[in-house]
Amino acid sequence: MLQKMFQRLDEQYENLVEIRRYLHQHPELSFQETKTAQYIADFYRTLGVTDIRTQVGGNGVVVRIKGSKPGKTVALRADFDALPIQDEKDVPYKSTVPGVMHACGHDGHTATLLTVAKTLYEMREELSGEYVMIHQHAEEYAPGGAISMIKDGCLDGVDVIFGTHLWSTEPTGQILYRTGPVMAAADRFKITIQGKGGHGAYPHNSKDAVVTAAQLVINLQQIVSRKVNPTDAAVISVGKFVAENAFNVIADKVVLEGTVRTFNEDVRDQIEMEMERVIKGTCYTNDSTYTYEYFRGYPALVNHSAETDFLANIAKDIPGVEEVLESPAKMGGEDFSYYLQHVKGTFFFTGARPDNIEEIIPHHHPKFDINEKSLLLAAKTLISAAVKYQAEV
Amino acid sequence: MLQKMFQRLDEQYENLVEIRRYLHQHPELSFQETKTAQYIADFYRTLGVTDIRTQVGGNGVVVRIKGSKPGKTVALRADFDALPIQDEKDVPYKSTVPGVMHACGHDGHTATLLTVAKTLYEMREELSGEYVMIHQHAEEYAPGGAISMIKDGCLDGVDVIFGTHLWSTEPTGQILYRTGPVMAAADRFKITIQGKGGHGAYPHNSKDAVVTAAQLVINLQQIVSRKVNPTDAAVISVGKFVAENAFNVIADKVVLEGTVRTFNEDVRDQIEMEMERVIKGTCYTNDSTYTYEYFRGYPALVNHSAETDFLANIAKDIPGVEEVLESPAKMGGEDFSYYLQHVKGTFFFTGARPDNIEEIIPHHHPKFDINEKSLLLAAKTLISAAVKYQAEV
Amino acid sequence: MLQKMFQRLDEQYENLVEIRRYLHQHPELSFQETKTAQYIADFYRTLGVTDIRTQVGGNGVVVRIKGSKPGKTVALRADFDALPIQDEKDVPYKSTVPGVMHACGHDGHTATLLTVAKTLYEMREELSGEYVMIHQHAEEYAPGGAISMIKDGCLDGVDVIFGTHLWSTEPTGQILYRTGPVMAAADRFKITIQGKGGHGAYPHNSKDAVVTAAQLVINLQQIVSRKVNPTDAAVISVGKFVAENAFNVIADKVVLEGTVRTFNEDVRDQIEMEMERVIKGTCYTNDSTYTYEYFRGYPALVNHSAETDFLANIAKDIPGVEEVLESPAKMGGEDFSYYLQHVKGTFFFTGARPDNIEEIIPHHHPKFDINEKSLLLAAKTLISAAVKYQAEV
Amino acid sequence: MLQKMFQRLDEQYENLVEIRRYLHQHPELSFQETKTAQYIADFYRTLGVTDIRTQVGGNGVVVRIKGSKPGKTVALRADFDALPIQDEKDVPYKSTVPGVMHACGHDGHTATLLTVAKTLYEMREELSGEYVMIHQHAEEYAPGGAISMIKDGCLDGVDVIFGTHLWSTEPTGQILYRTGPVMAAADRFKITIQGKGGHGAYPHNSKDAVVTAAQLVINLQQIVSRKVNPTDAAVISVGKFVAENAFNVIADKVVLEGTVRTFNEDVRDQIEMEMERVIKGTCYTNDSTYTYEYFRGYPALVNHSAETDFLANIAKDIPGVEEVLESPAKMGGEDFSYYLQHVKGTFFFTGARPDNIEEIIPHHHPKFDINEKSLLLAAKTLISAAVKYQAEV
Repeated sequence: MLQKMFQRLDEQYENLVEIRRYLHQHPELSFQETKTAQYIADFYRTLGVTDIRTQVGGNGVVVRIKGSKPGKTVALRADFDALPIQDEKDVPYKSTVPGVMHACGHDGHTATLLTVAKTLYEMREELSGEYVMIHQHAEEYAPGGAISMIKDGCLDGVDVIFGTHLWSTEPTGQILYRTGPVMAAADRFKITIQGKGGHGAYPHNSKDAVVTAAQLVINLQQIVSRKVNPTDAAVISVGKFVAENAFNVIADKVVLEGTVRTFNEDVRDQIEMEMERVIKGTCYTNDSTYTYEYFRGYPALVNHSAETDFLANIAKDIPGVEEVLESPAKMGGEDFSYYLQHVKGTFFFTGARPDNIEEIIPHHHPKFDINEKSLLLAAKTLISAAVKYQAEV
Repeated sequence: MLQKMFQRLDEQYENLVEIRRYLHQHPELSFQETKTAQYIADFYRTLGVTDIRTQVGGNGVVVRIKGSKPGKTVALRADFDALPIQDEKDVPYKSTVPGVMHACGHDGHTATLLTVAKTLYEMREELSGEYVMIHQHAEEYAPGGAISMIKDGCLDGVDVIFGTHLWSTEPTGQILYRTGPVMAAADRFKITIQGKGGHGAYPHNSKDAVVTAAQLVINLQQIVSRKVNPTDAAVISVGKFVAENAFNVIADKVVLEGTVRTFNEDVRDQIEMEMERVIKGTCYTNDSTYTYEYFRGYPALVNHSAETDFLANIAKDIPGVEEVLESPAKMGGEDFSYYLQHVKGTFFFTGARPDNIEEIIPHHHPKFDINEKSLLLAAKTLISAAVKYQAEV
Repeated sequence: MLQKMFQRLDEQYENLVEIRRYLHQHPELSFQETKTAQYIADFYRTLGVTDIRTQVGGNGVVVRIKGSKPGKTVALRADFDALPIQDEKDVPYKSTVPGVMHACGHDGHTATLLTVAKTLYEMREELSGEYVMIHQHAEEYAPGGAISMIKDGCLDGVDVIFGTHLWSTEPTGQILYRTGPVMAAADRFKITIQGKGGHGAYPHNSKDAVVTAAQLVINLQQIVSRKVNPTDAAVISVGKFVAENAFNVIADKVVLEGTVRTFNEDVRDQIEMEMERVIKGTCYTNDSTYTYEYFRGYPALVNHSAETDFLANIAKDIPGVEEVLESPAKMGGEDFSYYLQHVKGTFFFTGARPDNIEEIIPHHHPKFDINEKSLLLAAKTLISAAVKYQAEV
Repeated sequence: MLQKMFQRLDEQYENLVEIRRYLHQHPELSFQETKTAQYIADFYRTLGVTDIRTQVGGNGVVVRIKGSKPGKTVALRADFDALPIQDEKDVPYKSTVPGVMHACGHDGHTATLLTVAKTLYEMREELSGEYVMIHQHAEEYAPGGAISMIKDGCLDGVDVIFGTHLWSTEPTGQILYRTGPVMAAADRFKITIQGKGGHGAYPHNSKDAVVTAAQLVINLQQIVSRKVNPTDAAVISVGKFVAENAFNVIADKVVLEGTVRTFNEDVRDQIEMEMERVIKGTCYTNDSTYTYEYFRGYPALVNHSAETDFLANIAKDIPGVEEVLESPAKMGGEDFSYYLQHVKGTFFFTGARPDNIEEIIPHHHPKFDINEKSLLLAAKTLISAAVKYQAEV
């Protein structure tokens, strides 16, 4: 049966590419992706599928396809939002929306899942179990779509979930898995240092917020190098440092914003707490005050061990997959993590590096693109996982 | 004769206040003060003075009044530009120009000098020597008006120059003098740190310009504490620190701007050079590059010793002057410094603190005001200096 | 056969403890452990073993025991040096050598291996293959004994090597394994900052080496937090910072010494290089000079995957072993790493926490001790690995 | 009369040099200078002086010489202790005491005052008033000899005091005066940072005292550059930073010692207080604790205005004095400051740079020496001040 499915997927390759390119040309920002949701729902309606739920937890679309025999309920997830980036590629399927672009491959994820669903639907008579297509909006922007779709029932009755991310920097032909923590918890913080402004010529009458904030930037780095267990990965980055004064004015106030990345809830808690200590001490040192806000983003994505082993195994038999490798952990965030807090499953990477390129272009880059052949490999891996999982104990 | 002059000045007090208030209501920004220049010139024309030069080095006005007997040529200087500050005082003579305000007392300087000039002109038959009224535009904004007015001849034939600054934080009734360096050289710098931007989750792929610039802010402070002779006053203040990124982006670039204050050309040169060393070393440490621009503002204002002693002595005899004190040096800048590089003279402060105030308001503050009685003390001190200097060897 | 071996080991428990306690009372420092080597050689001679090599690569002792049938050559290694620490335990078997102590359990390693060897020797008629007992001197002090023992042939003909470390902070009853990097590369550095000394009252005539070195300590930390991939563990610690001056003298020179820990040769190279950049930049910033020496210690200990899986499996069947767990990687160093660069094998931890303790005492502590029951578990696991490995493909 | 005195001094030049060289060869450390005190007392006894007090406040010697007519009581002070420095000069009068040396010119001060006293004594019949020779022990080492000599009555009845310091870096022929603060308050501090020690490989289990102390060194510098009024001179120098650990140990504790220099009691108080804030905040930042001790040394030496003007005037008439200049303030300390808290007076510098030198050698240097011609200039200036002061109102 799986060979037949692979063949059908091969036959639909042109259509798969067409869908992907259509979506690529019509990107929508997170939480605003209503036309894409409409497109997805229309696809299923045209196909004749009946169990279509729209506006699931926002713009989410959830479709259920039942096999003819009893079995497990397997969810497959694809996200469909785009990014506020100007498309700078010179290709016919370039974004038609100024300043908005599918620069992270979610167009490919969606085209893949639609094509997988079509095959599952067409062969439903031969299938056991039930298949839940989770088309998720808003992965790029916290709090993300996953959490509200779960609340709205998208995982009801689900036994296991699989998802993949096309990855433009890894060779097409690779499938990358990893047990345990694979993508980081991605948090945000905002610190305001309140000193006392004054004339640049009279520092002794002021409390220089630029000097205080500079000390703080340095001191925060030492949490990672001195306080966190060296075998636990952690990042604290201050991206924003704003003291917009005339050159001859001593800063009254500085605003800092940044991100914290961790793989482990204890380390996450530790950093949130240590930061407060460092901020408080640094401000005391400089006779200044502060506000400190720490916003938790997506938790770390932690793959389940058995499901990851299962995926790594079935991937070896996918035609076209040349290598199945353990992936290093990545410091990026992904709200697939929420699904894995509720049901078993695994999230893997599908190598999608374009052929014959001079330079490897990372995700979120204005010239980001994928190798469309990877869509077929992703589709085959997902469908294989979904169908073979029926046989797992 | 001096008593007669003092009496005339007393008689003109109401008029003096009226002029000051008119100017206060009609402030003009540096290098744009054409109507004020016109007002000044008109004042002299109405008086019947003939030797009036306008547009001296820009908007400057220079008026020469000759006594009937030969003698020295004494210059008196008053500046007349205002500041880009919104007047927040609740007084009838409040600024009528939105966002522009005489927040440094230059209105008072001008009213004082016009009144002094009127008295000199009216008593010219009894006077020896020549009197040069230098009405200077653009003191507040480098490169300032003094340098171009000097080039345009305002000091030609001048033997000595006197000037005063009304000072709102010192008690009315005080005259403050100081020999040697009294106001600082006021320079500006701009530093751009060029790192390599990236995603906040992947610091190892970037060169974090915020961390580099934070180190630099700290390291620059150590020039003052470790490299400059402790008995030489010096200030390095970074007022502007701008890294305007999203919270999860590592800064590509940071722009720093600040001011350097010194009293001594060697220290000034030393700091300019040491800064380059510190910037270069800090950027090397962080594998980053930089641009560094150092803009020299006004030089330090260095009073001449004999003229300062002279001024301190004659001030003791001014009716209404209660205390003649040595002033501490001030880290602020003043382009009167240029005149003192060409001719002998001294610049002093006239206490101008308003009566019955709850809080002392500094210069350049939206609620800045002066005690108008100080105008009369300034006028008497200037006229006394001008006339008595004829007798000095 | 294995059950019989376990029984024999059980019977020798008292003797095992006696050997350990004898060694504990007679510790010798690294590279000076001649009496311990003698003790070991005597043990084998008394037993009747003939293939005893002493002074292998220094104080090393290598003993080979042949089974009656052909098979693989399996090496087992135990180290036998002690530490320059004063024993502060209050026990009858306390160290008799002032300032020297077995504070890392090498006495236990040796007692275990001798007892294992006795059993192997006594049952040699029933065994296949060959067994190589590597009694290694000088594990605690770089360059260590392993490297010279390998040069001197201790691994000749060896197919696989196993070793264990008793671990006082983990519960007795646990065996801990880990594939891949498990103990860190442990390097040392020495930095001399050369400034210019002077009187504390005149900083501008000096180049303050304390300030420069303080900046350097801070800047070095940022290599770990900003330059190393967050998913690669790394540590830079400055342990020694010496500026021994009178309070009113500015330091001419500062000496820093510290350690670097990494798991990966690329990161190790990167840190060595980045440190030079940071030192050079920081010294340039402070117009000072430096010397920088980086001494490579033991490389990271990288366990082989198949042998680690094998060990984890056989450990589950050892009587008395309650838990077989994956160990986290440890930042400590261990020169067993050299053996694994030459032959396959794995290094594991044997939980050795004493019963009924109030406080967990770490290794290298003056009150360090082990639970002697762990010796038996270590012995059984090693003998089981050695014998069962004959059946591995 | 003064000319006669100058002539007598000229005649005694050889003897003056002889005394100085004898003392130079026999230096004694502060608070141990009993033989020097004996030498001084013997000198006066041989001369026939009767009012000799020895052991004044320690090893001090005070001698009073009365003129035949009534008048003011003028004190002249010379210190006589040496330093723990090895004399490295190659001269016949080199120190004979290993590791002890007159490296600050106190031998010259004493020889000068003895010679002045001899002349005053011999001409006492012609003199008005009374002359008090204060031979002070222990100037180099806090708490110094001045404070206990004052308690022991050395200033009783004294109207004015004069003292000089030979200064090896200024040209012989110069007399340098300064009104107001001329030498700094010289304080000492000791800070102990208590972190938590540990193994260099496990920073997260420790509180790294080296990192904390490094931050503190940097942060302390910012008190001078940001908190003290730029026109007030101030120095904070950390001379001692000791963390004597093995390279692979994280420091438990760091001891810092240093000096603070100020000219103004308010700034002194401010720095003592700000340091505590910075230490407390920096330790809080690093979850560590501290002890902080601040020891006040000599206060700033503040010359009296009228007496300084007087001295500057009389110095112009001393034969051999080529220049009388205003001295810059010096950050060094001097316990002459205590005398000036009790009586009027001034402390001046006598240029003493050797002729024909290649390099200017500072005080406290192993090759320190003075130009002996300066002794005569110092003697003439002191005797002139003492005698002419009788005529001052």
